[in-house]
Amino acid sequence: MKINAERLLAALDEQAAIGRTEDGGLDRTSLSDADLEVRAWFAERARCGGLTVSTDGAGNQRAVYASPQPDAPTLLIGSHLDSVPNGGRFDGALGVLAGLEVALTLADARARLPFHVEVVNFTDEEGTRLGLLGSTAMCGRLTSETLDSVRLGRAELDAALERVGCSCDTALSAQRDFSNIVGYFEVHIEQGTRLERAGLDIGVVTAIVGIRSYWLTFGGQAAHAGTRPILDRRDAFMGAAQFAQEARRLVLERFLPGVCNVGAVHVEPGAFNIVPAMARLAFEFRHGDPASLDDMERGLLALARKAADDHGLTLDVAPAGGAEPALMDARLVETVERAAESAGLSHQRLMSFAGHDAQMMARVTPSVMFFVPCKDGISHNPAEYCAAQDCVNAAQVMLNSVLLMAGSFSTSVGV
Amino acid sequence: MKINAERLLAALDEQAAIGRTEDGGLDRTSLSDADLEVRAWFAERARCGGLTVSTDGAGNQRAVYASPQPDAPTLLIGSHLDSVPNGGRFDGALGVLAGLEVALTLADARARLPFHVEVVNFTDEEGTRLGLLGSTAMCGRLTSETLDSVRLGRAELDAALERVGCSCDTALSAQRDFSNIVGYFEVHIEQGTRLERAGLDIGVVTAIVGIRSYWLTFGGQAAHAGTRPILDRRDAFMGAAQFAQEARRLVLERFLPGVCNVGAVHVEPGAFNIVPAMARLAFEFRHGDPASLDDMERGLLALARKAADDHGLTLDVAPAGGAEPALMDARLVETVERAAESAGLSHQRLMSFAGHDAQMMARVTPSVMFFVPCKDGISHNPAEYCAAQDCVNAAQVMLNSVLLMAGSFSTSVGV
Repeated sequence: MKINAERLLAALDEQAAIGRTEDGGLDRTSLSDADLEVRAWFAERARCGGLTVSTDGAGNQRAVYASPQPDAPTLLIGSHLDSVPNGGRFDGALGVLAGLEVALTLADARARLPFHVEVVNFTDEEGTRLGLLGSTAMCGRLTSETLDSVRLGRAELDAALERVGCSCDTALSAQRDFSNIVGYFEVHIEQGTRLERAGLDIGVVTAIVGIRSYWLTFGGQAAHAGTRPILDRRDAFMGAAQFAQEARRLVLERFLPGVCNVGAVHVEPGAFNIVPAMARLAFEFRHGDPASLDDMERGLLALARKAADDHGLTLDVAPAGGAEPALMDARLVETVERAAESAGLSHQRLMSFAGHDAQMMARVTPSVMFFVPCKDGISHNPAEYCAAQDCVNAAQVMLNSVLLMAGSFSTSVGV
Repeated sequence: MKINAERLLAALDEQAAIGRTEDGGLDRTSLSDADLEVRAWFAERARCGGLTVSTDGAGNQRAVYASPQPDAPTLLIGSHLDSVPNGGRFDGALGVLAGLEVALTLADARARLPFHVEVVNFTDEEGTRLGLLGSTAMCGRLTSETLDSVRLGRAELDAALERVGCSCDTALSAQRDFSNIVGYFEVHIEQGTRLERAGLDIGVVTAIVGIRSYWLTFGGQAAHAGTRPILDRRDAFMGAAQFAQEARRLVLERFLPGVCNVGAVHVEPGAFNIVPAMARLAFEFRHGDPASLDDMERGLLALARKAADDHGLTLDVAPAGGAEPALMDARLVETVERAAESAGLSHQRLMSFAGHDAQMMARVTPSVMFFVPCKDGISHNPAEYCAAQDCVNAAQVMLNSVLLMAGSFSTSVGV
């Protein structure tokens, strides 16, 4: 069975026009106007192909191709249609639309499967408010405490969720019964250069790195930038700048291939002639090994305290989410490898340095991810690019995986 | 002749309520609603005291106590009623209200002076749009090119000036004829700790340091903060952080008592999981010696280029205003010293590390500034505080200076 390459590529083009930026990227943060538009587009496209569409209490969209057996279990294929601000047009969208293409191909063929195939568009994977919000809620790991600490505040999240008929309360009740779930599959662009450099088609993920995010707020004292001698200052930005430099050095010296990032910086009061009284950093770090992730946390937060001490500053450390490292299911890893081989594609195993909904799903159901190459490893950037053949490979390997899963059931598969 | 201490202190309290922040500071940036309110208050207070109030083409307010000789020259006393965002209640306001108190005292006494005494409230000393805008325009140093490069754009400045019946065009025509100006006097809080530590009442300024301001924009490449290895990044914020650290070190090693400051930081796109593509710093540095200021500029901009090179970044250097070092008039320095002595106050000479309208006025007329102590040197901060006695001293020394100036004229002075 072959997926419809033309239909898949047309769908990728269509979604890329929703929230498109001038430079060909995407600005489609979760629950923004553009996200609402692409959700409507996705639902329409799925319904026209004969799928059943619904939204759960966390705003996750679900498009189902049903098994002839009403009480059959469900196989999940997911990813996300939201983007980071000024991001690219494949990160997330490829996974949802490859899943959709698989379901539509099965529907075209009137395939009779021993499980329902459900394609999920998860809410806020990218974390405009709370990373992996949709999958966290679906897995029953969302807590009221977490909602109280979302980046833009709980009231704002309530208002945003209302745009898709949901609320914090419905999100807290969105836990799904996983006893009848076969497993979870996700395909994504690699967002790195390992496949491209090795000239390989498919990367089968064995583990997803853990991520920890913090708001680090350095507090000093506003002062006149002319009359206050440098050594008499409590310059909040100088502490923040020292930390950023030393954090980078520590990771390079002790924690490779781990990474860290200062992604956002707020300085107050913010004038040429005032020594900064406050500097707040959005800081995160990642590692695939749980023990190393703990070591990184201790080392990096110690550096933040040292930078604060060196400049006479206070330091406030506020966790802003994250995820523990997650192992993929060994049997499903092998399934994807066989699916790639049956499509005539080369493959290798690797770790994912990006967080994905799969790492949440792996806590409650057998899960696997696989990657296709993207140009120069560029992602979260308008220049993000995945060749048409790699998009087609993504959907075909997903379809083959689903068919291998179906074949492994005692129930016969009819096509 | 004595100033009216009670009236002066009441006036200081009244103005401090206009644009007052919760923590007792001032948020009264130039041409804001609060600034418009304090301007109306100032005009009303001056008119009630018998002064003639007008506004020039740059929005500078002028309150005049006239000489009986209509063609007499004019002695200027100035400062500013605008504040930085979340600033203090003495920076600028003390100088304008001490000048006003001098004029009101002269009016109360029906003093007959050989010159008009004109108290000026200059527009945008603090540089919400363009530092020293009002005095620059009055001195005929404002150019259309400068207006094209103001921080918030020329159109925004036009709209702001319209609030006081002015425009960029009228500001460009606001040059005054200085041939009949006797000189310029300004009193200000020290914004430093030299007087307080030395236990002195009055600091007579001999020179004002030069300031140069730049927007430094580091340009890199947005990338996924998990999948892009640290050494493969072009991280704009890392270049900016390195520069901030190295600039501080260079000034401490080679350019004391010069200073530098990174006062504002903008990072884009601004998310936890995206390597910053752009980091823009509001950067300034100051020195009293013109040659050292030039050396600082060369050294600091070289460090910015090095930081950009080290991280594979582009660097855009955009001048954002500044001022050259300015010498005070030797005869007026002596006048203020004698005025302090006649008030029984101790004094010393010092340099000003803050920019003031006096440095612009010094280019076109004999000028002098003097300082009174402020608590702990704190300024540009809600905690800024100047003791009542020091406020009274400020006005009394200013009055004594005016009377000494009058006495130096051949024309007799009647009180």
